[in-house]
Amino acid sequence: MPESVKTDVDLSQYPHINRGLEGIVAFTTNKSAIDGQKGKLIYAGYSIDDLAEHASFEEVCFLLWNNRLPNKDELDDLTAKLQKERAIPETVKNYLRNTPDTAEPMGVLRTAVSMLADTYDRKEVEDRSFFTNKAISIVAKMPTIVAGFERARQGKDLVDPLEDQSAAHNFLYMLNNEHPGSEAEKTMNLALVLHAEHGMNASTFTSRTICSTESDMFSAVTGAIGALKGPLHGGANQAVMAMLRELDAKGDDADPVQFVKNKLDNKEKISGFGHRVYRTMDPRAVHLRKMSKKLTKETGTERFYEWSESILETMKSEKDIDPNVDFFSATVYHSMGISSDMFTCIFAMSRAAGWTGHFIEQAENNRLIRPRALYIDDRDKKWIPLEER
Amino acid sequence: MPESVKTDVDLSQYPHINRGLEGIVAFTTNKSAIDGQKGKLIYAGYSIDDLAEHASFEEVCFLLWNNRLPNKDELDDLTAKLQKERAIPETVKNYLRNTPDTAEPMGVLRTAVSMLADTYDRKEVEDRSFFTNKAISIVAKMPTIVAGFERARQGKDLVDPLEDQSAAHNFLYMLNNEHPGSEAEKTMNLALVLHAEHGMNASTFTSRTICSTESDMFSAVTGAIGALKGPLHGGANQAVMAMLRELDAKGDDADPVQFVKNKLDNKEKISGFGHRVYRTMDPRAVHLRKMSKKLTKETGTERFYEWSESILETMKSEKDIDPNVDFFSATVYHSMGISSDMFTCIFAMSRAAGWTGHFIEQAENNRLIRPRALYIDDRDKKWIPLEER
Repeated sequence: MPESVKTDVDLSQYPHINRGLEGIVAFTTNKSAIDGQKGKLIYAGYSIDDLAEHASFEEVCFLLWNNRLPNKDELDDLTAKLQKERAIPETVKNYLRNTPDTAEPMGVLRTAVSMLADTYDRKEVEDRSFFTNKAISIVAKMPTIVAGFERARQGKDLVDPLEDQSAAHNFLYMLNNEHPGSEAEKTMNLALVLHAEHGMNASTFTSRTICSTESDMFSAVTGAIGALKGPLHGGANQAVMAMLRELDAKGDDADPVQFVKNKLDNKEKISGFGHRVYRTMDPRAVHLRKMSKKLTKETGTERFYEWSESILETMKSEKDIDPNVDFFSATVYHSMGISSDMFTCIFAMSRAAGWTGHFIEQAENNRLIRPRALYIDDRDKKWIPLEER
Repeated sequence: MPESVKTDVDLSQYPHINRGLEGIVAFTTNKSAIDGQKGKLIYAGYSIDDLAEHASFEEVCFLLWNNRLPNKDELDDLTAKLQKERAIPETVKNYLRNTPDTAEPMGVLRTAVSMLADTYDRKEVEDRSFFTNKAISIVAKMPTIVAGFERARQGKDLVDPLEDQSAAHNFLYMLNNEHPGSEAEKTMNLALVLHAEHGMNASTFTSRTICSTESDMFSAVTGAIGALKGPLHGGANQAVMAMLRELDAKGDDADPVQFVKNKLDNKEKISGFGHRVYRTMDPRAVHLRKMSKKLTKETGTERFYEWSESILETMKSEKDIDPNVDFFSATVYHSMGISSDMFTCIFAMSRAAGWTGHFIEQAENNRLIRPRALYIDDRDKKWIPLEER
């Protein structure tokens, strides 16, 4: 195929074009606030620091779906419903078992979540009053899909979900077919809490845009998974791990400072740094950093943590850029024995709480989302018959 | 679950919130222009009237991917590639065969397109230089999926695609297991040409937003299908047919004028009317209207056409609103024997040309799409332990 023909247009004559929609306020929300200057993140009124210290992922789901914390009965009720909804249909299990091992996990997750809709009554899929129950089902089933594909591609049997235990505990159990220790459960819960919601990122915006046509929640979450998959969004934590492995391959010659400087000299991107919003260290990275230090020590991979710290210092002194959420989540997941190409799936399992929360919010006060594109080519080309071209 | 807690905020104090992103120019494009005042639609320089009269869907694909018309060799080459790519993997066929008959066709199409990615090499899925080949594959395979699910849910065997013939011919052949007449082929080709591209609608915008994270084309088209599924977007043509059937059920008492007036009195929506952009009749509706008149006569369903005309006149006199592309496409598809819940899938098969064209354009000049949301709730809620709530 020939290359796309580009029309030579002086774009400076169109000062009103905003290609990233930066600074355009498209929504009001009760879900989260980010103070980029101070490095603060708030979910529905509560600081991420309080949530990291005290909250379960289930509690965060309640918070993001209802804009308030649950009392004990409400939390017990939601937890029970989430537990009950963990099992996935046989069709989805078969898909996970029969998919090529080489398939990209986020693509598999996208397909499997889309497929969940088939087993619901069509009216129930489309009825916009069933939202919260569908949110429960989607958030409950995504970990089962992720753990299922990881086991299937390793030639192992799928592990049925537990009907008790926390989301964090159950996910690690389904992945490894053994109950995790309380520290591992706590770490996984922290990762789920920290990734659940983060303002108007591209995947959340995708969920709201799909919702805005009055489409259903399965469509919205499927689209959001596709958006999160991109390396400019959720895909970055895998890239951080790839960078650390690249250093590791150098053996005794591994020199993280020089490694970063070389990359910067070659104008290569250092993954896990910088954010369009934060001008300080990402407040989520603060918690993951502590966890990374602890876990790498326990698993004898301190070098990954130490290199991370050296990379962080070098990036700060060379470019004055701080790490984002992806930077330390890489070593945290790696220490827990999770394959690096599964990292983004764990992000998705957690962010589904936010995607569905924003879907509910959009549906309650909907307006079709439809910006404009400026057409810059000729408008009156004369049709020429094929034989004369 | 309790209902979402809403915070009482006076939104008039935020005049800069643009919930539909209306009038915000987010892109430049060579793909299409709409003159809403004059009722003109242009694909990459060519009037929709010329394209409707002369172009094949394959030619329109070339135009939308390359911003120019092909010469004969180029069109032959693209046509051959599209023909070669029609067959779908066995995994997708199995999915279509084993999906409950009650599943919603657009949901099935969303899942099946997502699943296509599994059979590609992971690097090929993600490599952004393979775009046009992936666009060919997606556009070639979508009709095979749509026809396959329609047959599977009727308990019929799937029909393998032809390796010659036009996209329009092949789709009708796969649907009915017999070669269509030249008039039917011409009508299907017209429908595919007219729906292929239409500026910055919600599904095309979804495709570009997903592309903007550097995600892949399968993710973008999967998300776009989810957006098109909504009744405020592609789902409207099904609703038009439902309205005509509602009238039909009244038998001799069917009175389209009174029917519309009653609906308007009850503040009900009349599907197939109005458009955020056009202030005249949608130029695509002009062509579909002629086709509807002709086809309903041939199939002995003139009443649907006549009622459509009465509804159109009533809407014009009562509300001064014109029909959009969905209004006459309903009777056109119905006359061709297509199930009404498959109408939106045909829209999607065609619009995939535009979605992939916009993906290529976005990837060539990318910027992460990320508008803002204004947080309107408290920012400093104090954490209260569960037992004290």
